[in-house]
Amino acid sequence: KPKQVSYSNRGMTLEEDINETNQFYLTFQKAVIHKKPTPVQIVDVHYPSRSAAVIKEAYFKQPSTTDYNGVFKGRYIDFEAKETKNKTSFPLQNFHEHQILHMESVHKQEGITFVLIRFSLSEEVFLLPYEALRVYWDRMAGGGRKSIKREEMEEKGFSIPLGLHPRVDYLKIVHQLYF
Amino acid sequence: KPKQVSYSNRGMTLEEDINETNQFYLTFQKAVIHKKPTPVQIVDVHYPSRSAAVIKEAYFKQPSTTDYNGVFKGRYIDFEAKETKNKTSFPLQNFHEHQILHMESVHKQEGITFVLIRFSLSEEVFLLPYEALRVYWDRMAGGGRKSIKREEMEEKGFSIPLGLHPRVDYLKIVHQLYF
Ligand SMILES: [Mg+2]
Ligand SMILES: [Mg+2]
Repeated sequence: KPKQVSYSNRGMTLEEDINETNQFYLTFQKAVIHKKPTPVQIVDVHYPSRSAAVIKEAYFKQPSTTDYNGVFKGRYIDFEAKETKNKTSFPLQNFHEHQILHMESVHKQEGITFVLIRFSLSEEVFLLPYEALRVYWDRMAGGGRKSIKREEMEEKGFSIPLGLHPRVDYLKIVHQLYF
Repeated sequence: KPKQVSYSNRGMTLEEDINETNQFYLTFQKAVIHKKPTPVQIVDVHYPSRSAAVIKEAYFKQPSTTDYNGVFKGRYIDFEAKETKNKTSFPLQNFHEHQILHMESVHKQEGITFVLIRFSLSEEVFLLPYEALRVYWDRMAGGGRKSIKREEMEEKGFSIPLGLHPRVDYLKIVHQLYF
């Protein structure tokens, strides 16, 4: 009986796993997808002579879009990555309304948009298409539950097996779903 | 004889004009294109009680991609914007090698990639497709001239008339060229 190979994530965050995966995609020319820099409001910069400019005062700004975007086979890819320590549901308060609005705009413009959600304790990662996320978001807005049940995620999302290289091969699912 | 309407840029930078144009595209659901935040390496953050976190030490990082990307009719759009005060040529040292490499990757992935170049003094803006830029970049790498001549820009690039709303309607050219 062949042994089931298990790839534990060795304490890496979902973001680290995705960044490594994107680097793999870039190296092998499968896609060009990058994480956007954290938006920062810069207030004060010093210019010490003969050394690099130092930002002395700055503030974090609310991002107006999602974390990741790029191109795969000519199509636009746009997604947000989130982790939860919950076991039985994913809390929707993890999203900001402007992120949902951004994904809605991308969807209308025929871009490919989704979220990658990790249940940290079980290390399971799901790709949930925006259309499905939107249904749960609207349910909450209508006074319904404020989270996506684990079983709902299994039904409407797509499980991404953890690998060694790349770690989270989400484009495999994207290719099946959108091409 | 009808008077030629002239839209001077009233001292706005090319970046401001493009940001306004992208906001117009977003509002009218023509495209979803954003400027990426400036990448910053954050070293020290203070958390004063009852107020927002303050970044006390940070440094500018070299961007590894271009300034703008997004989606237009499902296709991936990726470009860099540059201004010059030169009258007769555009100096290629305005680009970093990693920006060229990034555009090359995007081009191979069938994304739409180009540069928007403004000659500030005449206020003329050109869209130069990556394929054309690459020819001039390679010419420099081969020991040739370190700039693109104004006449070359007129021949291989596409002039974008300045408008009132949007100010720099580059998607009109993109639509003609790539769709
Ligand atoms: Mg995130
Ligand atoms: Mg620029």
